[in-house]
Amino acid sequence: MGNRMRTFLAGATIALAVQMAQAQAQDTAAQRAYAAVDPFIGTGGEGHTFPGATLPFGMVQLSPDTRIQARKDAYGWAAGYRHSDDTIVGFSHTHFSGTGHSDLGDVLLMPVSGDAKLERGDPDVPGSGYTSRYSHATETAAPGYYAVTLADAGVRAELTASARVGVHRYAFPQGKPAHVIVDLRTSMYDYPGKVQWSRIRVRADGTVTGMRETRGWAPGRQLYFALRFSQPLAGHALQDTEQNVPYKGFPPPGEKDSAQRAQIEGRQLVARFDFGDRLSAPLVAKLAISPVSEDGAIANLDAEVPGFDFDRVRAAAQAQWAQALGVAEVDAPAPMRKAFFTALYHAFMGPSLFMDSDGRYRGPDNAVHQAKGWTHYSTFSLWDTYRALHPLLTIVQPEQRNADIVNSLLASRRESPYGVLPVWAFHGLETWCMIGYHAVPVIADAYMKGIRGFDADEALDAMVASASYGPYDGIAQYMQLGYVPIDEEGEAASKTLEYAFDDWTIFRMAQALGRKDLAATFGKRAANWKHAFDPATGFMRARKRDGSFRTPFDPDASGYGTDYTEGNAWQYSWYVPQDVAGLAAAHGGADKLLARLDAVFDAKVDPKVFAHMEDITGLIGWYAHGNEPSHHVAYLYAYAGQPWRTQARLKQIMDTQYKPTIDGLAGNDDLGQMSAWYVFTALGFYPVAPGSNQYILGRPFVRKATLNLPNGKRFSVVADGLSDANAYVGGVTLDGKPLHRAFITHQELMAGGELRFAMQAQPDKDWPGAGAQAPYSMSAQ
Amino acid sequence: MGNRMRTFLAGATIALAVQMAQAQAQDTAAQRAYAAVDPFIGTGGEGHTFPGATLPFGMVQLSPDTRIQARKDAYGWAAGYRHSDDTIVGFSHTHFSGTGHSDLGDVLLMPVSGDAKLERGDPDVPGSGYTSRYSHATETAAPGYYAVTLADAGVRAELTASARVGVHRYAFPQGKPAHVIVDLRTSMYDYPGKVQWSRIRVRADGTVTGMRETRGWAPGRQLYFALRFSQPLAGHALQDTEQNVPYKGFPPPGEKDSAQRAQIEGRQLVARFDFGDRLSAPLVAKLAISPVSEDGAIANLDAEVPGFDFDRVRAAAQAQWAQALGVAEVDAPAPMRKAFFTALYHAFMGPSLFMDSDGRYRGPDNAVHQAKGWTHYSTFSLWDTYRALHPLLTIVQPEQRNADIVNSLLASRRESPYGVLPVWAFHGLETWCMIGYHAVPVIADAYMKGIRGFDADEALDAMVASASYGPYDGIAQYMQLGYVPIDEEGEAASKTLEYAFDDWTIFRMAQALGRKDLAATFGKRAANWKHAFDPATGFMRARKRDGSFRTPFDPDASGYGTDYTEGNAWQYSWYVPQDVAGLAAAHGGADKLLARLDAVFDAKVDPKVFAHMEDITGLIGWYAHGNEPSHHVAYLYAYAGQPWRTQARLKQIMDTQYKPTIDGLAGNDDLGQMSAWYVFTALGFYPVAPGSNQYILGRPFVRKATLNLPNGKRFSVVADGLSDANAYVGGVTLDGKPLHRAFITHQELMAGGELRFAMQAQPDKDWPGAGAQAPYSMSAQ
Repeated sequence: MGNRMRTFLAGATIALAVQMAQAQAQDTAAQRAYAAVDPFIGTGGEGHTFPGATLPFGMVQLSPDTRIQARKDAYGWAAGYRHSDDTIVGFSHTHFSGTGHSDLGDVLLMPVSGDAKLERGDPDVPGSGYTSRYSHATETAAPGYYAVTLADAGVRAELTASARVGVHRYAFPQGKPAHVIVDLRTSMYDYPGKVQWSRIRVRADGTVTGMRETRGWAPGRQLYFALRFSQPLAGHALQDTEQNVPYKGFPPPGEKDSAQRAQIEGRQLVARFDFGDRLSAPLVAKLAISPVSEDGAIANLDAEVPGFDFDRVRAAAQAQWAQALGVAEVDAPAPMRKAFFTALYHAFMGPSLFMDSDGRYRGPDNAVHQAKGWTHYSTFSLWDTYRALHPLLTIVQPEQRNADIVNSLLASRRESPYGVLPVWAFHGLETWCMIGYHAVPVIADAYMKGIRGFDADEALDAMVASASYGPYDGIAQYMQLGYVPIDEEGEAASKTLEYAFDDWTIFRMAQALGRKDLAATFGKRAANWKHAFDPATGFMRARKRDGSFRTPFDPDASGYGTDYTEGNAWQYSWYVPQDVAGLAAAHGGADKLLARLDAVFDAKVDPKVFAHMEDITGLIGWYAHGNEPSHHVAYLYAYAGQPWRTQARLKQIMDTQYKPTIDGLAGNDDLGQMSAWYVFTALGFYPVAPGSNQYILGRPFVRKATLNLPNGKRFSVVADGLSDANAYVGGVTLDGKPLHRAFITHQELMAGGELRFAMQAQPDKDWPGAGAQAPYSMSAQ
Repeated sequence: MGNRMRTFLAGATIALAVQMAQAQAQDTAAQRAYAAVDPFIGTGGEGHTFPGATLPFGMVQLSPDTRIQARKDAYGWAAGYRHSDDTIVGFSHTHFSGTGHSDLGDVLLMPVSGDAKLERGDPDVPGSGYTSRYSHATETAAPGYYAVTLADAGVRAELTASARVGVHRYAFPQGKPAHVIVDLRTSMYDYPGKVQWSRIRVRADGTVTGMRETRGWAPGRQLYFALRFSQPLAGHALQDTEQNVPYKGFPPPGEKDSAQRAQIEGRQLVARFDFGDRLSAPLVAKLAISPVSEDGAIANLDAEVPGFDFDRVRAAAQAQWAQALGVAEVDAPAPMRKAFFTALYHAFMGPSLFMDSDGRYRGPDNAVHQAKGWTHYSTFSLWDTYRALHPLLTIVQPEQRNADIVNSLLASRRESPYGVLPVWAFHGLETWCMIGYHAVPVIADAYMKGIRGFDADEALDAMVASASYGPYDGIAQYMQLGYVPIDEEGEAASKTLEYAFDDWTIFRMAQALGRKDLAATFGKRAANWKHAFDPATGFMRARKRDGSFRTPFDPDASGYGTDYTEGNAWQYSWYVPQDVAGLAAAHGGADKLLARLDAVFDAKVDPKVFAHMEDITGLIGWYAHGNEPSHHVAYLYAYAGQPWRTQARLKQIMDTQYKPTIDGLAGNDDLGQMSAWYVFTALGFYPVAPGSNQYILGRPFVRKATLNLPNGKRFSVVADGLSDANAYVGGVTLDGKPLHRAFITHQELMAGGELRFAMQAQPDKDWPGAGAQAPYSMSAQ
């Protein structure tokens, strides 16, 4: 397709989006869903979310960065923004939503008026740099839109975004020179040598392009950009501020006069672009990113935002968000609607589009590849998101998106130098963060739920390859011994447990594909959790190669070097979602297991015990809702025949761990996993064991919710008599028929219909009743 | 074209080359030309050549590196090899031939037996690293082939090359473990932070790929490679030895056991590949490079060297060289034939192919581009090579190659962030080394000589753009004042003079294209040399903006900050090749100019005056044959009506500045310029003013030479009566008719025929005679 045609089509797409936005203005549900979102939720406290502008699953996340910290202090600023800060450094184009590690923050722009400093300065010394004070009173945020007044510069700054383009609108004060700083040095935190190389080029037509290559969370990451302004440049300056080992080559033209420089390369680059003091209208800056090249960024810019119509881009963003959020209609009090739709909003932050408009992207081999027939995504926080985020997307996003996600995982495996599926990947690159091979349950769950559009045989091969890659985290020993030996590999108990679950999903998919050999192998491996169970203590523990459990053993202990990953024995000992019945049997029966679960929730725990662990937050006893290993635990009561206990624990969690406020998330949102838990739980069901096609029933927290399923059907949840006092389920009907089991199936959900809960003040300890069908448990099949 | 087809064709090409090699075994001339070459000429002394294996204009130059120096000592090791060293560090795949600056040295391989150290060690302490001693007695080199015995490892190592692939054959001693070290750290010299990023990946099929990104002579240079061994790997180790700021990410699989690592990334990488102690045949390693990607390198490997037949690749290299060198047949004593064909060999070292087998390459914007319809070259040492190297290629290489060179220059200009033609470019990137815009005379000379196959209008546009780019080296001031002012730009006299010459070639081409406007503008600019001429001292000098010459003035002074580039007033004051008659007139007549030239050659000069200038070597008085500003000077006598004085000076130069020995080059070969001077001068003529289509006659130094011109014609030079005593020309005939002028034209040369010199002991001061047509001089037209 020629450029002109592509530009035309992009224009047509935007026009269509605007039409849709107008249409949806009459669509009360979608509009009300959009209006309910508060992007500031989680920007304080532990949430690590950002308030800036992005599309659902967009490649650009354009958001203010409030402070740049030293690496050791970077945890709290992983999203760039902390609501408690009173300064803004600038607006950068890529952010993680809710992570515990910090990276991205690519291409920081900052409007400045008057004297323009090229250093960000000390945030505590106003005027010492281009950093500006701001007041929350001037801030506005909605999905796809953010605005703030920069007090020091006197600039009203607005942000919006298309998929690959961040669009800024800056209203400068009259009569003072207007500038835009472009800083390639800042990158969420300061780290010596983080920028491996970077480039800024001012082209003859005023387009500014460049790249930065960084070694942050993932090393060798290249990101390209193209930037255009709505007004011609009156001047510019390009500077390399490196003091450490500056590059000494022959001077390029313009060395003596930065305003004459057409390009600069180095490791500490900053630029100033000048627009004089007579701007007759707000300045619009549009910046496209590309994983491939500067030309790729220019093509993305041309394809998505051909002009400088900020409002048009904003309207298109609003339309896309309204359409996406309109998948749910919720009848609930305003605070809960805000929490619900903001959770849904945060659930659509990842995986992120990672592909140029021509289908090219960069893979885990750091090479450029071409997506043929699918849309490529990256940013896979899989240890978190396989639990509830991907199962949620399977329900509320189009099948094509879910197939694209699987195709992206499969492409990454084809391109992997290790021949394995992503573990924790972003911008195409592998970070090896966290444990497990949890792309496996994502794919298995999608396949079991009928998602097609990818090569199932290749997928199974890829899953088996990931589960069999010996050098990774003790898999060789796991395959030999049936468990990961702690004397050879750290956090061995957690790894054994999670591998066994992932293996069970391979077993499921192999069964579905008629691959009996693989089903036998991985069915056996799925029982490996038993090797971690210590009957003497009732905890999951790590064994040594000689078969003995490691001693001394402290079930309270957590941290690197222990048996567990971001947790302790109290938190990790219930991770057998594929076989809760087996777990209960191991404990000596369901009652024994129930007592243990109560011991978890009801323990008196001094939170200081986790002072050394950033991620373990949101404590209820030992239960830590702020981190993922706990997320399924409250639902285990239902397996053990006491759904009323699940209902009670869920109320306890919902009441204490989520608020529709700045600090409303008890833990890192982790690319939507915390939010997906909320969405499911508010609706009254949860995917404890992805791959099982079952959702365990909890209780609804909304009066009514209807899901407008992508297949055109509608599935409603109704909570009759719901009130704060009526917190227990007295009975459940599905499509009017009493439901005598504590779960529903994916097939039932996707068929549309109505799930109706009768809420009451007292627990109904008899529901679903003796002889009710139990949820899937492997050993009970 | 599919891979299979491409591989097939590559195989067919090699088969054809082998056939040609066999055919040429009967072609005495080509075979004797090939046999006459001694690649060791220039590897000692000032030549900076390398003895390794490459094809004519090949992308790979595979050669031993003898020592790695600190950057401050790197000058003498710019080609990696110094004959005076007695150790070899390894064999790397890219080298400059004859430069004064140092870079490349990409992907160093070293065979080791027994205990394999990963550090190169101290060359003065045998066994302290993988560096090995060697003896010149074991060395063999021929075009496309090099062999040596590594004494410490006991390995016989042979090297050969195709265009993009280096092929190694290592015969290991029996009974000891055989290893190959791959070192990405070494790069001709040590410089902190030079390697920006690098990667080594061991693929499942045993292919090793990787990349390195360096900031050396040009920053941000990326080079990719793919390596295969003829024997399966028995093991491997991948190490990052960085001590300064090592990358701290999450450990990839195999962190604990290097043998399990599939990939390593970092800034100081080295690998060891193991082959056990039972190799039944010599190990063949083939390594392809690519400017684009690892996949590009694999494709290059597959396309050019599908198997592991070292001898087949060697035979094909020999065939290509014999064909290229067979352009000349020379009747001369063996030492002169050796010097002549080695000079021709060195003249075919650059520009170098810089394009993958699929036509992709990297441009000065560091982006990947696709050559459509031409072969892309880089490594343009233009300040040197516009003088004689490119004019030589215009005669002895196919028109397509010369058109490809022009197309490569034009592509680089299209891709240039500055919109200008290359200045000193390699691997696609601009270094801004030296002065002038000498791609301009290369293109003009090619066009004036009838080279077609490029867009002449675009070429003229590009030439004008380069000559009008204000920020570069004082061009803005030059366009304003008619000279470069020394108070605003260093080395201003040299710049004014060279710009004026380059401008004259634009004038010539604009005239030829009927662009009268441009011809007028640049014809005027061509006379700007007059602004540098100081009648009071008779020297070219630098003026200040106020029009006065800078004082104090010392015609002996050279160095950075002076009026001149790598020279002094004695050396630079004759640089008006476009208007020697005008220069003579400025001096007050030809006799005055002649006296000044004698003063140059006959001065008593203490060489210590240039001790601070690495490049000014090969002194005869002030005449410095080791550097390019002097190269045309001896021929100026002929312009002034005294060709016999040119003949005498040429003998003086040929007798003292060239020897067919290790230290046989008086200065850096500079990508073939020193050698091209030799080839022309040995044949009896020289292109003093590229763009004039005239070759000034000197005198032949060979009894007879025949050029097998690419158009199928044959042009012979005969020196009747030639002897050491008969050093003067008594008369000249062209095709049997007496020639009454001291030049021939390109048209005459390309028409074929015979140029016959009658050599005699006494100068013929009357030839070419009163009223003889003078060579081109602009002011005389």
